[in-house]
Amino acid sequence: MLNFKYYSPTEFVFGKDTEQEVGKLLKKCKAKKVLLHYGSGSVKRSGLLDRVIKSIEAEKIEHVELGGVVPNPRDTLVYEGIELCKTEGVNFILAVGGGSVIDSAKAIAMGVKYKGDFWDLFDDPNKIKGALSVAAVLTIPAAGSEGSNASVITKTEGMLKRVTHSNSIIPAFAIINPELTYTLPSYQTAAGVVDMISHILERYLTKTNDVILTDRLCEATLVSIIEAMRIIQKEPTNYEARATICWSGTIAHNGSLGVGRVEDWASHRLEHELSAMYDVTHGAGLAVIFPAYMRYTLEEDVQRYRRLAVKVFGIKDKKNKAKKVALAGIGAMESFFKELGMPVTFEEIGAKREDIDKLLEKLKINVGEIVGNFKSLTMEDCKNVYELACK
Amino acid sequence: MLNFKYYSPTEFVFGKDTEQEVGKLLKKCKAKKVLLHYGSGSVKRSGLLDRVIKSIEAEKIEHVELGGVVPNPRDTLVYEGIELCKTEGVNFILAVGGGSVIDSAKAIAMGVKYKGDFWDLFDDPNKIKGALSVAAVLTIPAAGSEGSNASVITKTEGMLKRVTHSNSIIPAFAIINPELTYTLPSYQTAAGVVDMISHILERYLTKTNDVILTDRLCEATLVSIIEAMRIIQKEPTNYEARATICWSGTIAHNGSLGVGRVEDWASHRLEHELSAMYDVTHGAGLAVIFPAYMRYTLEEDVQRYRRLAVKVFGIKDKKNKAKKVALAGIGAMESFFKELGMPVTFEEIGAKREDIDKLLEKLKINVGEIVGNFKSLTMEDCKNVYELACK
Repeated sequence: MLNFKYYSPTEFVFGKDTEQEVGKLLKKCKAKKVLLHYGSGSVKRSGLLDRVIKSIEAEKIEHVELGGVVPNPRDTLVYEGIELCKTEGVNFILAVGGGSVIDSAKAIAMGVKYKGDFWDLFDDPNKIKGALSVAAVLTIPAAGSEGSNASVITKTEGMLKRVTHSNSIIPAFAIINPELTYTLPSYQTAAGVVDMISHILERYLTKTNDVILTDRLCEATLVSIIEAMRIIQKEPTNYEARATICWSGTIAHNGSLGVGRVEDWASHRLEHELSAMYDVTHGAGLAVIFPAYMRYTLEEDVQRYRRLAVKVFGIKDKKNKAKKVALAGIGAMESFFKELGMPVTFEEIGAKREDIDKLLEKLKINVGEIVGNFKSLTMEDCKNVYELACK
Repeated sequence: MLNFKYYSPTEFVFGKDTEQEVGKLLKKCKAKKVLLHYGSGSVKRSGLLDRVIKSIEAEKIEHVELGGVVPNPRDTLVYEGIELCKTEGVNFILAVGGGSVIDSAKAIAMGVKYKGDFWDLFDDPNKIKGALSVAAVLTIPAAGSEGSNASVITKTEGMLKRVTHSNSIIPAFAIINPELTYTLPSYQTAAGVVDMISHILERYLTKTNDVILTDRLCEATLVSIIEAMRIIQKEPTNYEARATICWSGTIAHNGSLGVGRVEDWASHRLEHELSAMYDVTHGAGLAVIFPAYMRYTLEEDVQRYRRLAVKVFGIKDKKNKAKKVALAGIGAMESFFKELGMPVTFEEIGAKREDIDKLLEKLKINVGEIVGNFKSLTMEDCKNVYELACK
């Protein structure tokens, strides 16, 4: 086990009707004027935004609104948000939405406290000197951004997807009401589930020895996600299954499942180029990349893949057949993604084999010559993974 | 799954040599003058306190010392600490030790900010209006106090063991270096392990339905604790096993394994009376109480006990033999405690059957007529559990 720091200071307020507590929570955080940040307007149509505003107004906290966040959120709106916060004297940003809205809120929060172009903070996280406080009312369990220190924004110029990290953007609180997820389109629920599974696998796939405790915690969460998702497919309003998915999405990415180990993150890097180029849902892109990545890196640690197959994907263990068992596990995961209606090939997301060189070019700009840690992927390796994902 | 709040804001700094970071961490927390609180002096003899002081002085932070915390920490030292902090203008308390030292530090931290007798804060947590900041350099993995909101102090008058809870006493940071635990007496390591197992079982034993995700996380942690402890018994300086035990002790009690469910805590309540009356190590008292409690409450949920037996204690499942499997699991746990050299009967800790009425009397003062939630134990039930624990 490696030395580690684990810091997850977010207050998670979980359960039915919890959005009604938002005003009181904001008051506790000394919010005076809040930017309500949201996406396409579904939070308006569902009445959620009205409930949030009612709760905020009851505490006599002022607010301004900025909607329009799109999936794979853009810098253009971040710039707009920064200006708005400065003009209006906002001291707190409340994201009402999923990972894209929260990530956009985090970028605005950092940008307000920085004199130069906020993109500098993505080039060099050391330049981040602080941020407005951020909190979230979560509507899509997926990205785990409600408890994470990361923000992923797309640079419109060149369509580059960039990521930065800072403890200053970890949300102060996150309200998670599983009932709000009942009406998510099934494609979005499924993409969210692939995203959270991927967040766990990026941590599970490690060369660090003796991290069996977190291995087991990862497996426990993965099994629970798969089980709950199968219930939701039949019964979209099953509260318990929705609650399991919501909480799994949070713990998959608040750091608790990655302590003491080198994490991988190659698949996320490979996927970011896909969603930047084709504007595909992040989770759908991950469903395409992950099985290919796993097959490509199988030989790095056959026993680890075998364990995953047996403990999570219900493959029967066979002595002296480790590789076969491991491959069956990857196959079972891919079948599960298909079962959820997720794409698993380039073609299904409109990606093209002939674009691979362009994807690699951008990957090199964003990450460098080597990608990931479980296997240090060269650009040649990355090409091979993309090729595998074409089939 | 019930609505819940989960809040674990402690920064955990885990691994080899991490005590050397204490000065920098204190500085980040704006500590000006620190009370160094510790126990019997083993932290002096081992040189740990010197290393801590060196790190603090390097940051030009002042300090005063208060040693002498005993297991089942007393109010007398808490009063002394409160006075010392006030006289010396201390603004931060650093506990260097195990759960007793941290709990004592927490009580002092609350007491400094309260005008009346600090015991009021144990009678009514609503009276807690704040606390000095507290942090810990952990030397004994057991109580989980380094990440919890609880403090347990023994009232010398009447030898009553009292508990209170407040988010204001959750440590700001906790330094956990598994190497510091190499030299613990094996009895103390074992008692710590029983304590952390108990913290998980108090959460595992619930009537709340549909908490399968946290059930699995509990099981994953329990299995890892047992496995690691068996390694430590043969190899006390096995770093990986020590690290597993240390981190398990923390997550067993930072709230993560109890979300969304009614927790029990009857066994802790029953044990507190034992350690208050006989001044026995808390973990040893729990080793006596838990098997008895589990046998007594078996019928409350045979299937839950059966699952525990199969998933954690390696009992082979048998259809239509749920109760037998469940009982075998409890037996296996008891055998594990014995294997660790822990007592499992009243006699072994010097407790007496004829004292049961006195124990019940104190229990009634401390808790009331009903104890616990998994089964609402009446005083008659509590008597029966104590009786069972005599054998």
